[in-house]
Amino acid sequence: MDLFTGSERAQRYIADLTAFMDERIYPAEAVYQEQMRAAGDPHHHPQILEDLKAQARERGLWNLFHPHPEWGPDLTNLEYAPLAEIMGRSPALAPEACNCAAPDTGNMEVFTLFGTEEHKQRWLEPLLAGTIRSAFAMTEPGVASSDATNIEMSMRRDGDDYLLDGRKWFASNALHANCKVLIVMGKTDPEAPPHRQQSMLVVPIDAPGVRVVRNLPVFGYQDREGHAEIVFDNVRVPSSDVLSGEGEGFAISQARLGPGRIHHCMRAIGMAERALELMCRRAESRTTFGRKLSERANIQDWIAEARIEIEQTRLLTLKAAWMMDTVGNKQARVEIAAIKVAAPNMALKIVDRAIQLHGAGGVTEDFPLASFWAHLRTLRLADGPDEVHKRSIARAELGRYREPRTPRA
Amino acid sequence: MDLFTGSERAQRYIADLTAFMDERIYPAEAVYQEQMRAAGDPHHHPQILEDLKAQARERGLWNLFHPHPEWGPDLTNLEYAPLAEIMGRSPALAPEACNCAAPDTGNMEVFTLFGTEEHKQRWLEPLLAGTIRSAFAMTEPGVASSDATNIEMSMRRDGDDYLLDGRKWFASNALHANCKVLIVMGKTDPEAPPHRQQSMLVVPIDAPGVRVVRNLPVFGYQDREGHAEIVFDNVRVPSSDVLSGEGEGFAISQARLGPGRIHHCMRAIGMAERALELMCRRAESRTTFGRKLSERANIQDWIAEARIEIEQTRLLTLKAAWMMDTVGNKQARVEIAAIKVAAPNMALKIVDRAIQLHGAGGVTEDFPLASFWAHLRTLRLADGPDEVHKRSIARAELGRYREPRTPRA
Amino acid sequence: MDLFTGSERAQRYIADLTAFMDERIYPAEAVYQEQMRAAGDPHHHPQILEDLKAQARERGLWNLFHPHPEWGPDLTNLEYAPLAEIMGRSPALAPEACNCAAPDTGNMEVFTLFGTEEHKQRWLEPLLAGTIRSAFAMTEPGVASSDATNIEMSMRRDGDDYLLDGRKWFASNALHANCKVLIVMGKTDPEAPPHRQQSMLVVPIDAPGVRVVRNLPVFGYQDREGHAEIVFDNVRVPSSDVLSGEGEGFAISQARLGPGRIHHCMRAIGMAERALELMCRRAESRTTFGRKLSERANIQDWIAEARIEIEQTRLLTLKAAWMMDTVGNKQARVEIAAIKVAAPNMALKIVDRAIQLHGAGGVTEDFPLASFWAHLRTLRLADGPDEVHKRSIARAELGRYREPRTPRA
Amino acid sequence: MDLFTGSERAQRYIADLTAFMDERIYPAEAVYQEQMRAAGDPHHHPQILEDLKAQARERGLWNLFHPHPEWGPDLTNLEYAPLAEIMGRSPALAPEACNCAAPDTGNMEVFTLFGTEEHKQRWLEPLLAGTIRSAFAMTEPGVASSDATNIEMSMRRDGDDYLLDGRKWFASNALHANCKVLIVMGKTDPEAPPHRQQSMLVVPIDAPGVRVVRNLPVFGYQDREGHAEIVFDNVRVPSSDVLSGEGEGFAISQARLGPGRIHHCMRAIGMAERALELMCRRAESRTTFGRKLSERANIQDWIAEARIEIEQTRLLTLKAAWMMDTVGNKQARVEIAAIKVAAPNMALKIVDRAIQLHGAGGVTEDFPLASFWAHLRTLRLADGPDEVHKRSIARAELGRYREPRTPRA
Repeated sequence: MDLFTGSERAQRYIADLTAFMDERIYPAEAVYQEQMRAAGDPHHHPQILEDLKAQARERGLWNLFHPHPEWGPDLTNLEYAPLAEIMGRSPALAPEACNCAAPDTGNMEVFTLFGTEEHKQRWLEPLLAGTIRSAFAMTEPGVASSDATNIEMSMRRDGDDYLLDGRKWFASNALHANCKVLIVMGKTDPEAPPHRQQSMLVVPIDAPGVRVVRNLPVFGYQDREGHAEIVFDNVRVPSSDVLSGEGEGFAISQARLGPGRIHHCMRAIGMAERALELMCRRAESRTTFGRKLSERANIQDWIAEARIEIEQTRLLTLKAAWMMDTVGNKQARVEIAAIKVAAPNMALKIVDRAIQLHGAGGVTEDFPLASFWAHLRTLRLADGPDEVHKRSIARAELGRYREPRTPRA
Repeated sequence: MDLFTGSERAQRYIADLTAFMDERIYPAEAVYQEQMRAAGDPHHHPQILEDLKAQARERGLWNLFHPHPEWGPDLTNLEYAPLAEIMGRSPALAPEACNCAAPDTGNMEVFTLFGTEEHKQRWLEPLLAGTIRSAFAMTEPGVASSDATNIEMSMRRDGDDYLLDGRKWFASNALHANCKVLIVMGKTDPEAPPHRQQSMLVVPIDAPGVRVVRNLPVFGYQDREGHAEIVFDNVRVPSSDVLSGEGEGFAISQARLGPGRIHHCMRAIGMAERALELMCRRAESRTTFGRKLSERANIQDWIAEARIEIEQTRLLTLKAAWMMDTVGNKQARVEIAAIKVAAPNMALKIVDRAIQLHGAGGVTEDFPLASFWAHLRTLRLADGPDEVHKRSIARAELGRYREPRTPRA
Repeated sequence: MDLFTGSERAQRYIADLTAFMDERIYPAEAVYQEQMRAAGDPHHHPQILEDLKAQARERGLWNLFHPHPEWGPDLTNLEYAPLAEIMGRSPALAPEACNCAAPDTGNMEVFTLFGTEEHKQRWLEPLLAGTIRSAFAMTEPGVASSDATNIEMSMRRDGDDYLLDGRKWFASNALHANCKVLIVMGKTDPEAPPHRQQSMLVVPIDAPGVRVVRNLPVFGYQDREGHAEIVFDNVRVPSSDVLSGEGEGFAISQARLGPGRIHHCMRAIGMAERALELMCRRAESRTTFGRKLSERANIQDWIAEARIEIEQTRLLTLKAAWMMDTVGNKQARVEIAAIKVAAPNMALKIVDRAIQLHGAGGVTEDFPLASFWAHLRTLRLADGPDEVHKRSIARAELGRYREPRTPRA
Repeated sequence: MDLFTGSERAQRYIADLTAFMDERIYPAEAVYQEQMRAAGDPHHHPQILEDLKAQARERGLWNLFHPHPEWGPDLTNLEYAPLAEIMGRSPALAPEACNCAAPDTGNMEVFTLFGTEEHKQRWLEPLLAGTIRSAFAMTEPGVASSDATNIEMSMRRDGDDYLLDGRKWFASNALHANCKVLIVMGKTDPEAPPHRQQSMLVVPIDAPGVRVVRNLPVFGYQDREGHAEIVFDNVRVPSSDVLSGEGEGFAISQARLGPGRIHHCMRAIGMAERALELMCRRAESRTTFGRKLSERANIQDWIAEARIEIEQTRLLTLKAAWMMDTVGNKQARVEIAAIKVAAPNMALKIVDRAIQLHGAGGVTEDFPLASFWAHLRTLRLADGPDEVHKRSIARAELGRYREPRTPRA
């Protein structure tokens, strides 16, 4: 397998997925907008998505993300990376069409690794089949979510059950029409050591006491899948629905975040590529003061810088994926932190310039750019703000100079 | 009058307006959100605005922008600048409460300078009274709006009337519940010299053939006042409703844009100040990894850079205002172009960092930051993209070296 | 007096100084280079400088900086600012020609304010006459100079004398052919409160035990005036040569730094203006791929951004100067810190782009740009690194939100 | 061979070279400075270099760059990349010690590919043996060197000879004590098609009429090897010393520049790594206001950003090297242009921040940082300014959208 060209199998998936994008996904974008507009409900589940899901499944482009051979095509992270990027070019449609959308992917991994047989039957199988969807409730409005030990939601033992009380927000997907289940992080033992206080519980979204109080807008967007603020009011959950065991919450969250972060970054690169393509096409088609925009040197600089920065970020993402494959997510944590900082910032810069090139149209729904920007901006905060990742990278770097010198090759 | 402290009169207005903001406007922000949410219509006109308008008028904080002594307090641009900035701190409420909102301000100036007696009676007086609102229809979706000579809307003479055919977009305010009139730019004579082909006509929004086809979202926001796409289908307008005379459209647009641009910039500085205030308060109130955010050196850098950049941009804006007052809008065009580039970019950077500091909350409706960002981003395109203004500045600068050397003091 | 046009007196000085630059200084630049090259000694004092000094004096362009009516023209900081800027356009010649060069200006102020009669007669008068020069020895190689309390040089009392032991560096001017005296900061009482431990002493450069061990290069430049590393080995100084009194060192250094910093910033703006002029002239004169560089949109962006940023920084500097004049150096400390950060960074960006436009020639001696860059870069460290100034600004800003809200107009 | 770990052979070279750096090169830096200072001649050839050359040769670390198996170890560009990077960490010593310094490497390739048997015997063999050095005279002071067709030097046929007249500058290495030969680009036929007018001639540096008129300083540095301005005054060169054939000059220059550019970039990455190491060590060792610099969040951000940007640029450089190896220099031209822009800019940013962290010492000779900066800055101009490379990249990118859509995987 070669880094730049990919394995033969990866090449085949890339070709198939690219064909699917060209033949089905891009043409469906206008249909999707029209169906959503007609429905008048931001959380409507439009028919076009079910059509696309059926087509993706038929083409064998289903659950591509799943690293477990029992449930998916058994691709490595390095093989999956270009596929996630390609899906990222149409982020509202392609990931869900291929059953590779966040946070379901992460949740499916968690159920695969830490779920009971019952969890697998009740939740994992329909998730893999694409008939239900799920959300992940970790972030809380009142505390800095960048430190998982800050979690305040109470999970108090009561006989064979836990009683959940607290408030979560940014539980993405919880307003999806098909969302049935939540994975919830909370505090089961405030007296335990800091990283052993938390547990993860599986909670049906219709459990008594679970109340979605609002959808959180993102720069004015009411996303279809939603970012829910959820109140948990004395919610009773059987202890058999603890994942992996009491006190394992922090460990699971660490395991979950590595792939989740890298998938986000791959899709961000796809958005950047799409924006660059739109930039080039627009620059070729518009004329001001007697010259095509594509002939102006400042626009050429933007295009060149975009190409350079996309290539650099893609390579860094591939390296992180390769390290996850070869030395494991934990050993790859500096590289994962690095792309988590690099990819959204790179993509934001390119999308912002593409908006500028599109004039007033760039901030509207007529191009995907404004939506790309808003969601990429959110990515600089989701799964930890840039500053927390930079802090980790710096501490690792500085650590090399606290011992006797170990020069880098 | 001193540049930094302002005239005595200006100081008094500043004090009065600041008191109004503290006592009425800021407390009204939550009420406004609640009334809008309850109405369920993005273009609803909430009661709180009428209450604020009555209070502003009572306090003598009404039509502050109007440079004409007959209609307003006769403030210079230099005196008005800090007032526009203060109103910009709460951009959804304060400018409209004080009857100083775009594009009405520009339209009122146009009616004052170029309107007939009938225009003044029918449109200017109710606009000054705040009982109706107006829109400006210039930009078109199909051409680069940065060059006014590109305008394609047809205004064909037919007896004593003109017949209008074409499509405009980003006609801001046209979806305001009280909007009654449009000022429309179009082409009356395609054979005339390039800057004499255009005329401006006054068109009631309910004229037969005028059809608002959609509201243009701004990064997902459906603004209350709206940014309309409007189709003009054989709209008949009497020739008495030409402003100033046939062929004067380009000249009026130039006269109109100077003050309009600087008002936008002043409000942008107000948004930046508000964002800096929010940044400081947040940094003081949140703790991560055992330290307040306000004690972290990277956050301190952000705060210091914000303070420096706001001060610089405010001074440049004041200088431009002072030049408009002393040598006229035309002689001040390089300075106006300079702040049109500097102010939105400065404010965007600060607001973006404030969002980062607010975590996930920063992209929601819980703080005004995401909305500030989206609208400031639009300002880098409205009234000409940055690149067009930079081009003008550069050409003026280069022009100094084409003649014998004229050194700058 | 008007901020933007200056007092009538200031206008006259501006005109006179501009004429002097055009008629004498710019033409002398090549002569200076030639005389220095011929001498083969980087610390040679060339005849052209004495010629220019005589001419400046004759034109009344002498000691313009000095705020004290007894010794200079009694200009305010606001009046002096544009003069310092103009001199900054030819930094190797004009400031010294007009007897306005650092660090002599700061030292002359210190002697004026804190010197004994003997100091004034022996050092101040010849400094004002331009017959001798002086240096300021504060920074030390072993400690972070950004915190004046870190100073380690020992000044031990011994009878009526002090004995000095320690090492200073970056004592600028100490290798000037005419340098005769040092003002030295050291620690007289390690047991006193932190800001009362330091004193400033006047030390003839030929005092026994004073040894200049090397000149410090600045990016390869061996500056004529030099940046000396000096060893003090048991140097005996009479107690009558303490400035102001034992324990006053820190207070004097604070008083000294305000004007010193702003003068540096004004000159930095002059360098930026010169670089912009060179950029425009070069862009007009060179052609690549069939078009003048001045017609390329990326170069136009550079020129426009330079113009905008220079204007903004100049205005901020004028405001800081005005505050020093009206509320005093101490009350103006945030504004002084702001320009100390803003001015060198602005100028560096512009000079760097000017270098880029000049191709390989830009890094050589054929244009003043490479030297400008190296010395402006040093200015981001001299008198405190950017980071220390930003920290001060941020702390002042945050302080406004620790008490009950005090909104800014 | 794996991209990230390298072939077994490459690994061995990396280990050997790293040991050589640690054991010989780094300790020699101070010795080198001392020998140069003692000599008092910037173009002195110090003994330490000959010692290091002998040691490198003994360790088999000699001519590593040479892709031709007859003359070197036959490493691919991908294998050589990390070695060039490691040598770049001590750019004044390591490349020359290993006989891998520019422009000799490029010249040796040219002699290998295009030289006659006599050229190989007379020039290539001693160059490979490290007993002589060479320079490359292409850039001219009077024209934009970014377009090779601008070359003006006249090479007029006269019987069996050519007569050379013109002026070159930035002929690096021409002032090296051992420099014996120049490869000179000039115009043999002004009437030929634009890319067939130029030829390359081999000219002994002591040929009558060749006169080095000055060394060009780089930001004040008088480099040991020198950057010569050379006048050619009726220099007679036999026609047998034309490389490859008359009219082949442009083609040779293209062939030569690919590897030359990538070697520069690899060394730039080495300088960036060295600067990051220095930054970390300094941050660990200095304390201000009661905390180590390494604990300040702004410094941590700098360190993290440096690590991210180095990794990204290294990967892009490796990809370019891999493409040169697999599809050839010509097909890799966009990637080569990309690193030519990315690497110096990345390294400059990191070195600049490292300077800032070192305070005043950072601009002196006490650390290699100021010299790194000056020479990296020059690299943004050498072999074409950034803007020319960006233009090429943009044109390639835009070209993809001029034909029927060819989507990118």
